Amino acid sequence: MQALLITIGDEILLGQTIDTNATWLGQELNLIGIQVARRITVGDELSVILDALSYGWTHYDLVIMTGGLGPTNDDITKKAIAHFFQVDMVFDQGTYERILRIFDRIGRPATEAHREQCYMPANAELLPNAMGTAPGMWFERDGHLLISLPGVPYEMKSIMTVSGLPRLKEQKGLIPIFHCTLQTAGLGESEIASRLEHVEAALPDHIKLAYLPSLGQVRLRLSAYGGKVEVREIEMDHFARMIHEALGQSIFAEGDTTLEAALGELLRSRALLLATAESCTGGAIAHHITSVPGSSQYYLGTLVAYHNALKIEKLGVSPTDLDIHGAVSEPVVRQMVQGAIQAFGADVAISASGVAGPSGGTPDKPVGMIWIAVGNDSEIRTRLLKLGKDRIKNIETTAVLAMNELRIWLLNHPEVKGKGILY
Amino acid sequence: MQALLITIGDEILLGQTIDTNATWLGQELNLIGIQVARRITVGDELSVILDALSYGWTHYDLVIMTGGLGPTNDDITKKAIAHFFQVDMVFDQGTYERILRIFDRIGRPATEAHREQCYMPANAELLPNAMGTAPGMWFERDGHLLISLPGVPYEMKSIMTVSGLPRLKEQKGLIPIFHCTLQTAGLGESEIASRLEHVEAALPDHIKLAYLPSLGQVRLRLSAYGGKVEVREIEMDHFARMIHEALGQSIFAEGDTTLEAALGELLRSRALLLATAESCTGGAIAHHITSVPGSSQYYLGTLVAYHNALKIEKLGVSPTDLDIHGAVSEPVVRQMVQGAIQAFGADVAISASGVAGPSGGTPDKPVGMIWIAVGNDSEIRTRLLKLGKDRIKNIETTAVLAMNELRIWLLNHPEVKGKGILY
Repeated sequence: MQALLITIGDEILLGQTIDTNATWLGQELNLIGIQVARRITVGDELSVILDALSYGWTHYDLVIMTGGLGPTNDDITKKAIAHFFQVDMVFDQGTYERILRIFDRIGRPATEAHREQCYMPANAELLPNAMGTAPGMWFERDGHLLISLPGVPYEMKSIMTVSGLPRLKEQKGLIPIFHCTLQTAGLGESEIASRLEHVEAALPDHIKLAYLPSLGQVRLRLSAYGGKVEVREIEMDHFARMIHEALGQSIFAEGDTTLEAALGELLRSRALLLATAESCTGGAIAHHITSVPGSSQYYLGTLVAYHNALKIEKLGVSPTDLDIHGAVSEPVVRQMVQGAIQAFGADVAISASGVAGPSGGTPDKPVGMIWIAVGNDSEIRTRLLKLGKDRIKNIETTAVLAMNELRIWLLNHPEVKGKGILY
Repeated sequence: MQALLITIGDEILLGQTIDTNATWLGQELNLIGIQVARRITVGDELSVILDALSYGWTHYDLVIMTGGLGPTNDDITKKAIAHFFQVDMVFDQGTYERILRIFDRIGRPATEAHREQCYMPANAELLPNAMGTAPGMWFERDGHLLISLPGVPYEMKSIMTVSGLPRLKEQKGLIPIFHCTLQTAGLGESEIASRLEHVEAALPDHIKLAYLPSLGQVRLRLSAYGGKVEVREIEMDHFARMIHEALGQSIFAEGDTTLEAALGELLRSRALLLATAESCTGGAIAHHITSVPGSSQYYLGTLVAYHNALKIEKLGVSPTDLDIHGAVSEPVVRQMVQGAIQAFGADVAISASGVAGPSGGTPDKPVGMIWIAVGNDSEIRTRLLKLGKDRIKNIETTAVLAMNELRIWLLNHPEVKGKGILY
């Protein structure tokens, strides 16, 4: 089944809003075997919406429209749809009562605009919206499907997750797709590609391997098209195992976990307490780690010490080593790990010190040269990174690679256990 | 002048990549008076690219295509263009020599694929690419324009900034547009709207005011369409002044500065040293502040103290106050500011403590309840935030509002000066 996505909104054409709805729909539809073959973005104008809808209806099995359903833009999408199907707009009492209940709860009166919002094209089947006032709409005619959704991302996602996608899955003619996602950190895309050459060579035509890179990480996705569940499951397992063998500890998860959540789970399961000591990353490592709900159970905190005096005073870094080797050096990040363990009473720690840029580099220590260290009070592993000139990318990449270093250190030290989680 | 943007790439339809190119082009074209009337995204396939190009050429003055120019996808865009204009592909010696020089510099041989990449449609005018191998291409025929650009965002932006946009500006028939951007923090969109009612009412038809919100911030953009520069400048000044009067200190900049850069400039100009003490924000404030190049001149560091014992030990927070009021309380954030000033030897400090969520709330202190404090050793300002249930949004909003509180505190304490920047 092939789909066309129509995104409606002047703010998207103007570049004021990024169209994340189409991105999310592309992913989700692909996962259930529907291919997005084209996307169109048009402004808030009846004639251009109609034009895009007619085009989509003629050329594709499925058209999904987002946007133009709110009370402010005069429900222009619904008018276009009613016009296209040549049907009347009818008042939906159920939607109106739901809107009245929402406004009753927040203690404000519903307006005439909200009443107007309850008129729907007569042939619409409504898809309930648990997150807002405008329901989604489902239309079928002559073997074609149209779904219209509000543009607010969390409303759109909620409607599709609860009713749109499950109903689409039941459509006839979908080629079943099976996916398996393996998440890696610490290896570059080309390094992975060269280690997986034999896997790529062994893949049959109906199984594809996609590389989805971000800073310091690459997500690998195996997708099998068509066939029987039982056969595909065995095949996917087989290739996933080959990838595991080729990439080993660089794989931190199957499925959709984040690196910080995987690290957190490892710490929690071993009852280990973590602290960090950051210089060039300026709090980015702490920010990643604390983005995980419940991280307060294993994370004590960070000390960001931009200046040498603070590294000496708060983290016990040796003034002599700072003098001889400088702040961006192996001895200093090693002592920062020791200092963080000491200062926070942690079991394990991460540290980073480097030249984030864009200025501040020297011939000896150019922009992008960054030392990281991880470990406990008896064994510390250090690593030198040579990154680029972009400050924001350097900070982000360092944070990811440093968290990953600790994860690998923990895997290689299974005997290291802590005294218990915090509460 | 109306434009159609064509984005080419299977990875975009699959939702593996977000189409930020079209967003950026929408903004930049609008700034020079070109309206993006439609966007189309298609896959890496000759026939669909041709189809989109024919549609665009027939209906619009300007078509801009991004993607499909790399050596890996067989230069499919160039083939489509040559086919569309019915011209041959000719070898461009200049491009080939440039590619050879690039590979010579990095010490690797160019491949046959790179030689192939140098064949261009015969009617292309090349737009130089300082960031990569594939040049942009400019085509003119019968009063229509086509620009083809590589899909790599920094290459695309570089080509457009250096040659595409300046050349488009010179086209006939463009309505000149004048912009003025005012950046605010700390006020909600509806609060701003109600304070600017008289400004909206006074705006003539040819001047629009756009609200561009993000977490804790709203960018306001005045755009004037058409007319003489001298007249428009006077008008824009007039309305910008009205907005300044209505919003006062909530405006942190005109133009494109970030809040953290504006705060940094204020600290630097007053030779003040900043430290932070974070609990629920988990390093996010530090991460924002250190994202600014040169922040090491005024920023000493942060202590993220997730646990009460650390708040007591490292920041000198009173155990009695922690007992009586809890960690999420005004006395505690106040003492965290004092503790950070003390611990880091700073002039001013920011602190935050709250329930970021999604769990951990109590009836007394629900998820989203967050205290922030800013000030120096003699005067501290505190504020209670009541945010939502989303952990990531709560952390980000708190970081923005806390930085903004210090900015406003500094504006209200012009007498507070420091001892000098760090180096």
